[in-house]
Amino acid sequence: MEFDTIAAISTPMGEGAIAIVRLSGEEAFAIADRLFKGLGSKKLKDVPSHTIHYGHIIDPATGETAEEVMVSVMRGPKTFTKEDVVEINCHGGLVSVNRVLQLVLNQGARLAEPGEFTKRAFLNGRIDLSQAEAVIDLIRAKTDRAMNVALNQMDGRLSRLIRKLRQEILETLAHVEVNIDYPEYDDVEEMTHRMLLDKSRFVLKEIEKLLQTSQQGKILREGLSTVIVGRPNVGKSSLLNSLVHENKAIVTDIPGTTRDVIEEYVNVRGVPLRLLDTAGIRETEDIVERIGVERSRQVLKEADLILLVLNYSDDFTEEDRNLFRAVEGMDVIVIVNKTDLPQKLDMGEVKELASQYKIVTTSLKEDEGIDELEEAISSLFFSGSIEAGDMTYVSNSRHIALLNQAKNAIEEAISGVEMGTPIDIVQIDLTRSWELLGEIIGDSVHESLIDQLFSQFCLGK
Amino acid sequence: MEFDTIAAISTPMGEGAIAIVRLSGEEAFAIADRLFKGLGSKKLKDVPSHTIHYGHIIDPATGETAEEVMVSVMRGPKTFTKEDVVEINCHGGLVSVNRVLQLVLNQGARLAEPGEFTKRAFLNGRIDLSQAEAVIDLIRAKTDRAMNVALNQMDGRLSRLIRKLRQEILETLAHVEVNIDYPEYDDVEEMTHRMLLDKSRFVLKEIEKLLQTSQQGKILREGLSTVIVGRPNVGKSSLLNSLVHENKAIVTDIPGTTRDVIEEYVNVRGVPLRLLDTAGIRETEDIVERIGVERSRQVLKEADLILLVLNYSDDFTEEDRNLFRAVEGMDVIVIVNKTDLPQKLDMGEVKELASQYKIVTTSLKEDEGIDELEEAISSLFFSGSIEAGDMTYVSNSRHIALLNQAKNAIEEAISGVEMGTPIDIVQIDLTRSWELLGEIIGDSVHESLIDQLFSQFCLGK
Repeated sequence: MEFDTIAAISTPMGEGAIAIVRLSGEEAFAIADRLFKGLGSKKLKDVPSHTIHYGHIIDPATGETAEEVMVSVMRGPKTFTKEDVVEINCHGGLVSVNRVLQLVLNQGARLAEPGEFTKRAFLNGRIDLSQAEAVIDLIRAKTDRAMNVALNQMDGRLSRLIRKLRQEILETLAHVEVNIDYPEYDDVEEMTHRMLLDKSRFVLKEIEKLLQTSQQGKILREGLSTVIVGRPNVGKSSLLNSLVHENKAIVTDIPGTTRDVIEEYVNVRGVPLRLLDTAGIRETEDIVERIGVERSRQVLKEADLILLVLNYSDDFTEEDRNLFRAVEGMDVIVIVNKTDLPQKLDMGEVKELASQYKIVTTSLKEDEGIDELEEAISSLFFSGSIEAGDMTYVSNSRHIALLNQAKNAIEEAISGVEMGTPIDIVQIDLTRSWELLGEIIGDSVHESLIDQLFSQFCLGK
Repeated sequence: MEFDTIAAISTPMGEGAIAIVRLSGEEAFAIADRLFKGLGSKKLKDVPSHTIHYGHIIDPATGETAEEVMVSVMRGPKTFTKEDVVEINCHGGLVSVNRVLQLVLNQGARLAEPGEFTKRAFLNGRIDLSQAEAVIDLIRAKTDRAMNVALNQMDGRLSRLIRKLRQEILETLAHVEVNIDYPEYDDVEEMTHRMLLDKSRFVLKEIEKLLQTSQQGKILREGLSTVIVGRPNVGKSSLLNSLVHENKAIVTDIPGTTRDVIEEYVNVRGVPLRLLDTAGIRETEDIVERIGVERSRQVLKEADLILLVLNYSDDFTEEDRNLFRAVEGMDVIVIVNKTDLPQKLDMGEVKELASQYKIVTTSLKEDEGIDELEEAISSLFFSGSIEAGDMTYVSNSRHIALLNQAKNAIEEAISGVEMGTPIDIVQIDLTRSWELLGEIIGDSVHESLIDQLFSQFCLGK
């Protein structure tokens, strides 16, 4: 395949020591050669692949030095995109890197769309679709566990499993075809049915196994939306600070918004907690007063986990009871805080109301109970001690949806065989599951879907 | 000189396509080799310099793959620091790059201090101090002009000029020494005095020329703090939007603060305007009401440029008069806006009050007068059409202070000669100016100053 030459800034925007303008495509060397002046007279197109060259970017329009750079030259197909790639390492800084990008664009490169480098890696056959999707998961990973899941997927672990299942289905279909076309034996129908059932059940079981990882996979990938609720002065700020202090907090600007929405992630034993309305808690202690407000209800509704804080040294109040009502049916951990103070709370009442929840007692002031809380959070979502490194997780919503559809198709096939449905109808269901699995790795997907998937990437990837 | 091996993340923090962990020092290759597994069996220490290698970072503790990387190997002394340098290009993302950094640190590298890579380039003699300082100016440059000033300085243009002046002084001192020690002729005293005066005046003139560039240089480097004032509804928001819209705006988070202070830069014909209290203008139109408030006075006091907006279609009011009083003695451009509406403003009165200011009439609604305003801003600070590329600017406060001190010392020397002061006293002044100029390029500076200078850098540079 031949594409035009694209360019983009591949490092995050901001002041830093190094910023990179990346070019990929047939003209990458030619464009760089029109701008680059190294120490010798050698052109970049003539240097060995995978070498680094010191020099200056000269503006051809003025002859003036535009920047001092190191240029990396990588000849396709042994590159990220399988095309010729040039990376121009500039001094960090917005003016510098924008100036170099502009010169590159003036020389005929096209500004890359978000994800276009990775898209080319996919279109040029270096990676499949699920591997490409893992690239963005890896960049966005909030914890080590999440990164390992992405690394495994990028490495093709999920792809290999999917390919194996597709191969099973394909072989089954071929077998059926042969048996139908050449019914040499009398018992061909029975044999075909048995083989179909065996194979289909095997594929179904494998898909189900994958889907079982999906809840955890999604949490690893997207983080667990967590809301802290409780009356004023029960210690919500202290809880927040403990979680942030004990664990590495990652504050993320949400792109596209004007720095209004800030999410804070904390990494609790590999579980990324996305703390919602953190600013609200930080600013005031009376979030509970706003519990009736529509916005707070909305926040609660979006939460995957509620940390409901009670005061050990105070009576159980109607407000507390209202909180329990508001979070009914959700994943809740009840935290009874301030155990350093004399007990006034009726624990019997709490245990009754919180019968289906885990209760943790803490004295955040004395730094007690945090470990138990973290254990409770971790075990709520990672029962047992599953390590991300051990298995193939499905974490991507698109993959999960496709696996569910494939599962349905296989189940249709199985019940079809069981109910004596004509084989050619069963074949349709099997073919459909084969196609659905193919969409995960991008063997059979629409161009519009591909465009949409890659548009979620950051620029320059 | 031998230093330990340092490492840091050299790309801006944030989600991006590429993030770089940079190592520099004697152990750089050894540390990288303990973590890197390439496609072949070759160690990084054995590969040719300035080459790029694909592979994986393996955690030695677990044997697990930590990241997929491209590693650049550069052997000293032909590197940024003159030491062995390894750059590990990871997939962007906070977890990924932090994980690789952590592994590198576990293997014995020390986390670099801010600016430590550049500091080594200085300490190892690759660049002098003014060149090192230019590196950070380049990263922070807000306009092309500012970047060109930094590039020239980084290229050593200022250094060469300073060295030339120091050489002149040194030769003069040597001459004087010789003349004093070997007074072979009767008129030696007169000759010595004349030579001293000629040389000192030459150096003085050159220093004065440099200092003349300093106001512009400082503006280019730091931007022109600009405040828009005016009564409600005169069009302050429109003016702000016009400036931001017509010119590329760069919004900068001020590091060290918790994203409270946001500065907005617009680039007006190469002059970086740092718009102060932009948020205030954006949010409300009644900034003028706060003019009495201490904070607003403070903002005014810090401003290099005031854009005072009047309403062409309204009477001149006491409030307008107060504004003129508040900005007295500052650099002001008066903007008479809303010329698309019928005139009510007494322009005679305005011209009288604004006699020492430039007045520009605009209809921001009709997009008229913006060019004239930009021209007024540009010519207020860049009289004539000086291009940064043409000359050597002094932009750094430290350099300006040293040049002023050196100028004073030279002037002392000149008046000493003129007043018949003993030559050995004059020599002291000359020697002092020679030392002061040396501090600019770092030939004679205290370690504590060096530490302080480099600590202003960003991490990883």
